[in-house]
Amino acid sequence: MVAATLSPALISRFAEITGPAYALVDDKDIAPYLVESRGLYHGISPLVLRPGSVEEVSAILALATETGTAIVPQGGNTGHVGGSVPREGMADVVLSLSRLNRIRDVDPVGNVIVADGGAVLAEIQKAAEGVDRLFPLSLGSEGSCQIGGNLSTNAGGTAVLAYGNMRQLCLGLEVVLPTGEVWNGLRRLKKDNTGYDLRDLFIGAEGSLGVITGAVLKLFPRPLGHEVAFAGLKSVEDALALFERASSRCGTALTGFELMPRLGVDFTTRHIPGVRDPLATRHDWYVLIDISTSDAAETASRMMEALLAEGVEAGLVENAVIASSEEQRKALWHMRESMSPAQKPEGGSIKHDVSVPVSAIPAFMAEADAAVMAAMPGARICSFGHMGDGNIHYNISQPVGADKQAFLDRWREINHLVHGVVLKYNGSISAEHGIGQLKRDELAAVRAPIEMDLMRRIKGAFDPAGIMNPGKVVAV
Amino acid sequence: MVAATLSPALISRFAEITGPAYALVDDKDIAPYLVESRGLYHGISPLVLRPGSVEEVSAILALATETGTAIVPQGGNTGHVGGSVPREGMADVVLSLSRLNRIRDVDPVGNVIVADGGAVLAEIQKAAEGVDRLFPLSLGSEGSCQIGGNLSTNAGGTAVLAYGNMRQLCLGLEVVLPTGEVWNGLRRLKKDNTGYDLRDLFIGAEGSLGVITGAVLKLFPRPLGHEVAFAGLKSVEDALALFERASSRCGTALTGFELMPRLGVDFTTRHIPGVRDPLATRHDWYVLIDISTSDAAETASRMMEALLAEGVEAGLVENAVIASSEEQRKALWHMRESMSPAQKPEGGSIKHDVSVPVSAIPAFMAEADAAVMAAMPGARICSFGHMGDGNIHYNISQPVGADKQAFLDRWREINHLVHGVVLKYNGSISAEHGIGQLKRDELAAVRAPIEMDLMRRIKGAFDPAGIMNPGKVVAV
Repeated sequence: MVAATLSPALISRFAEITGPAYALVDDKDIAPYLVESRGLYHGISPLVLRPGSVEEVSAILALATETGTAIVPQGGNTGHVGGSVPREGMADVVLSLSRLNRIRDVDPVGNVIVADGGAVLAEIQKAAEGVDRLFPLSLGSEGSCQIGGNLSTNAGGTAVLAYGNMRQLCLGLEVVLPTGEVWNGLRRLKKDNTGYDLRDLFIGAEGSLGVITGAVLKLFPRPLGHEVAFAGLKSVEDALALFERASSRCGTALTGFELMPRLGVDFTTRHIPGVRDPLATRHDWYVLIDISTSDAAETASRMMEALLAEGVEAGLVENAVIASSEEQRKALWHMRESMSPAQKPEGGSIKHDVSVPVSAIPAFMAEADAAVMAAMPGARICSFGHMGDGNIHYNISQPVGADKQAFLDRWREINHLVHGVVLKYNGSISAEHGIGQLKRDELAAVRAPIEMDLMRRIKGAFDPAGIMNPGKVVAV
Repeated sequence: MVAATLSPALISRFAEITGPAYALVDDKDIAPYLVESRGLYHGISPLVLRPGSVEEVSAILALATETGTAIVPQGGNTGHVGGSVPREGMADVVLSLSRLNRIRDVDPVGNVIVADGGAVLAEIQKAAEGVDRLFPLSLGSEGSCQIGGNLSTNAGGTAVLAYGNMRQLCLGLEVVLPTGEVWNGLRRLKKDNTGYDLRDLFIGAEGSLGVITGAVLKLFPRPLGHEVAFAGLKSVEDALALFERASSRCGTALTGFELMPRLGVDFTTRHIPGVRDPLATRHDWYVLIDISTSDAAETASRMMEALLAEGVEAGLVENAVIASSEEQRKALWHMRESMSPAQKPEGGSIKHDVSVPVSAIPAFMAEADAAVMAAMPGARICSFGHMGDGNIHYNISQPVGADKQAFLDRWREINHLVHGVVLKYNGSISAEHGIGQLKRDELAAVRAPIEMDLMRRIKGAFDPAGIMNPGKVVAV
């Protein structure tokens, strides 16, 4: 067990490692490290450490193991599940990676970039562009999220369809273990079959097995051709049928296939400045189609035109528009990315980040919709997301005029309902946001005991003192 | 510790599980399960079990844990590192997956196939073709290797460049644990961030953590366009420069980029029936370029022609031919796949399966060549392989007229020399064949103690009784 208080003497010992300027103890300095943007958690902490080197991270963890002090690694703190904030009623020390933010190496010949764990995603994207390469991870918070956090949550984002999530985008890691020992796995190899896959174990572990301080990331050619289209359809079934054609026709040139409901278009055009409906006609469902090609710009436009023509011919596409400039392409993506923020002015929103097999999306949505509407008449379901990945952000806005708090008080109940349908289709209750504190107990409830037992064995083997981000992912 | 003998009573208890017809005890029946094709290992076994269901596998492992009996899971037994054969001087029981060979489900809409662990790779490829899809794993032994073995070794093969190795081709697993418990992780999800990555831990574990009895595999659109070219070049540097252009131009449409030396072309044309040099001119180095496109056949031919034109223009390509029929494409690949067998008639061959960062290939090869030629004048280096993956099969044929055994006796010495250069470039001593018995001790010698320690902790956490394929991958 870790200690629930921290003595002034121990605080001093930790502060000596970073120097006092980087050991925050005043409430007002600490406050920003305690809460996430959604405001679901209100943990406390007596100390925030901001180490400036891998050696300092190592010394901090060694001292934490020696003294049984709980450590919460924190990147950009842009998560949604309480994974990077301290627990309530404990004395967790926050270890901020924000000063470990260097790009260590950019190699356009080897197509890799090596960065500190605290490097901001947008800086990595920029460094890749600087050598005419693409680092494809892209998500709403890219201006502040850190690559170590992206790795620790196996982040997905908008380009998973073609490029995969963080597990597919990372070749090697440097990790400080709970004992302070450093694992240097900063390899740049595409093939390496030498024992157990430690890398993929640390990726997605949400900081509960060690602290990622460095990573080797893959770079890709920058696409020469890029087309974005917005199509109106009459049903989710038709969206799936169109996705299948797009996937067969374009292969990995299909870099995005995002589903949006009419309600989401209404919300974004109503509340988000500058967003307007690009189609003159109204449709029940919409898809954003993104195609990128590396050989020639014409290939992308030929693919997109042929796909939409085929979709119209087959009766799947009711109306569509292809963006004709970079500005228009950005505007279409901006609408898609505004789906979540646009719900805020509509009152409370109960959110789900789920996945099912792609072919089961229509059946899942129909069943979940029926269950939610039966339990909560008047609820406004705004489910959208990465259709090609089977990943739906199944969000529900409160009925018009309902009491916001009374609606939000039913969060767990509605989660249970929706997750029940997800499990029926052998889906996941967390497609991309992870487990953290939010879904820890629910995960243990829905997964087979042997699976939870294997996870606990891994946790015990890597962190016997239980100091690494305790209370997140798995309870031990 | 596991027992070094097996009592007749215990043999009977195991035989009861499968029925006597599938419990082999006669030496002549057991013999084929004891040796690999390269003949490096000569283990013994008192019993080969051929279970017919997951339940029987489970009962076998439960009994093995209860009685401390070592179990060696065996698929098609096509490995090269002693991973799937029993140890010398012990009483390891072989667990053959060959009867668990069903295709459980083929879903072209969800783009997955579900197969038993013992399903033969070629059967899975065929089942995918049957629904107009591609399962891209392809390797020399595909007619007899089993998917459970491909998974357990994280197999690579010829299509890694575009499609990745087994970790990238698998969505879910069913694994029987050493205790007999079954982990049902047969998910069909593209995104699932719910805790530690158990799947990738079992993949590549060489049967030392559990037995893979089922898998969900990804299917892909069958390419509409396919082009294969064979180009002569003057150096490895030029091959790398051409690869960089090919990679930028084609992206994931570049489905193969294989390097071959003149010596390999000499060996194959001399010894392999039907192989002939497709070029009238002689060159020091050759590359096989494979391009596949999913949108249209013309895209592949346009890409290939443009790439070769660019290569000639830049002075990288001395001469080249594009295959004009399926038969010619197969013939070019056949030459590449014959590089290893063609060495056999030339006497002894000391082999290495290594990888380095792609951009380091020329420097690695130059240094390794110098070291080998200094140590062994007259040696004939025939290094070829998956250049785009950084994976070189650095093989050395004996000097003409040398004594074969005396040459092969220097295997370890030469390995040490070559691996030293590999490590200098932060490479891997096993790019795709794994560790098994062959490289177990060498791995422990070249990797940092903390890395080996983490692997041993995983082994101990999953297999505390030490019954799963003991003596392979890590010593505990």
